[in-house]
Amino acid sequence: MKSRTIEFWFDFASTYCYPAAMRIEAVAARQNIEISWHAFLLGPIFNHQGWDDSPFNIYPAKGAYMWRDMERLCGDLHLPFQRPSTFPRNGLMAARIACRHASADWLPEFVRAVYHANFARDRDISTPNVIADCLHTAGQSSDAILSEASQPSVKEALRKETEQAIQRGVFGAPFFFAGDEPFWGNDRLERAITALGA
Amino acid sequence: MKSRTIEFWFDFASTYCYPAAMRIEAVAARQNIEISWHAFLLGPIFNHQGWDDSPFNIYPAKGAYMWRDMERLCGDLHLPFQRPSTFPRNGLMAARIACRHASADWLPEFVRAVYHANFARDRDISTPNVIADCLHTAGQSSDAILSEASQPSVKEALRKETEQAIQRGVFGAPFFFAGDEPFWGNDRLERAITALGA
Repeated sequence: MKSRTIEFWFDFASTYCYPAAMRIEAVAARQNIEISWHAFLLGPIFNHQGWDDSPFNIYPAKGAYMWRDMERLCGDLHLPFQRPSTFPRNGLMAARIACRHASADWLPEFVRAVYHANFARDRDISTPNVIADCLHTAGQSSDAILSEASQPSVKEALRKETEQAIQRGVFGAPFFFAGDEPFWGNDRLERAITALGA
Repeated sequence: MKSRTIEFWFDFASTYCYPAAMRIEAVAARQNIEISWHAFLLGPIFNHQGWDDSPFNIYPAKGAYMWRDMERLCGDLHLPFQRPSTFPRNGLMAARIACRHASADWLPEFVRAVYHANFARDRDISTPNVIADCLHTAGQSSDAILSEASQPSVKEALRKETEQAIQRGVFGAPFFFAGDEPFWGNDRLERAITALGA
């Protein structure tokens, strides 16, 4: 029996995760597919590949293209977009919270709020006050969640999630799994859903 | 006034150029868009980026994913696909011919024949006999075209085309231009056509 859950692996600094995070709930709902949310960190994976920065910064032609492509893509989707003044932003705190609360009913709204802060409002998502605002947007009070985010068990959970991503062949983001079937990139979201619905 | 011509930049070793080359004529014809065919070499561009091989070989997780994605993609498009036993294949001779005869009416059929040889039949497109077969498929006799392909002016024309690609920010293939607007990847073909048709 096929799983009716799509796994969504995302990194809060990743540009193409922004449209994916904004779209995935509607796309999945149309086919009655559940979403399993997996925050992880691309940084260690890029380090693993010998990069100490985003490939969009290391390879300037690729980076220039990506920013233009993002403008077009967000325009097509009617998503607000502002190129972040710092890229990539440090999404560690947000990722720890998203990993710890992956099954919470407020998680999707928090995830969208963080992407909106980073890519629509150019806010620094590494700072506690911005993350607190995102938690408030999701209807949560922030103090307990923020202080819990620096506990060793929460740090360890995110490390394990990122390690699992590497083990399963994740090399970029967004990444989707339909069962064991891998799909990379915002452009593959619909195809991943189709794989589950077939 | 908008140009009604899409530029199609392709490398004969590039996996994702195979579905693009097979699809582009039908997709463009539906909108009455002309195609300007630009064979070039990714190798010098990858060298420029510090790579001495395809990134799909340098980064194994990315490569493993790409082969699975190609199987799926070709399956969805009903295109025959066989993973080449050598990757990337040397497409220099084919690219020189395609560059020299970019405007010939038989060029699209030759291009498709070369991609079919490489990605559907696992034939070595670096060899004159395979390229001769591709020329025959396109209704051409091969001797004069093959010997012309090693003339200095033909070699120089391909070098200049590749240099132009670098100057215009091409960093991968397939690459499309709708006027000055850049589009990277088989997944962006329809969007590039839309940019011209709007």
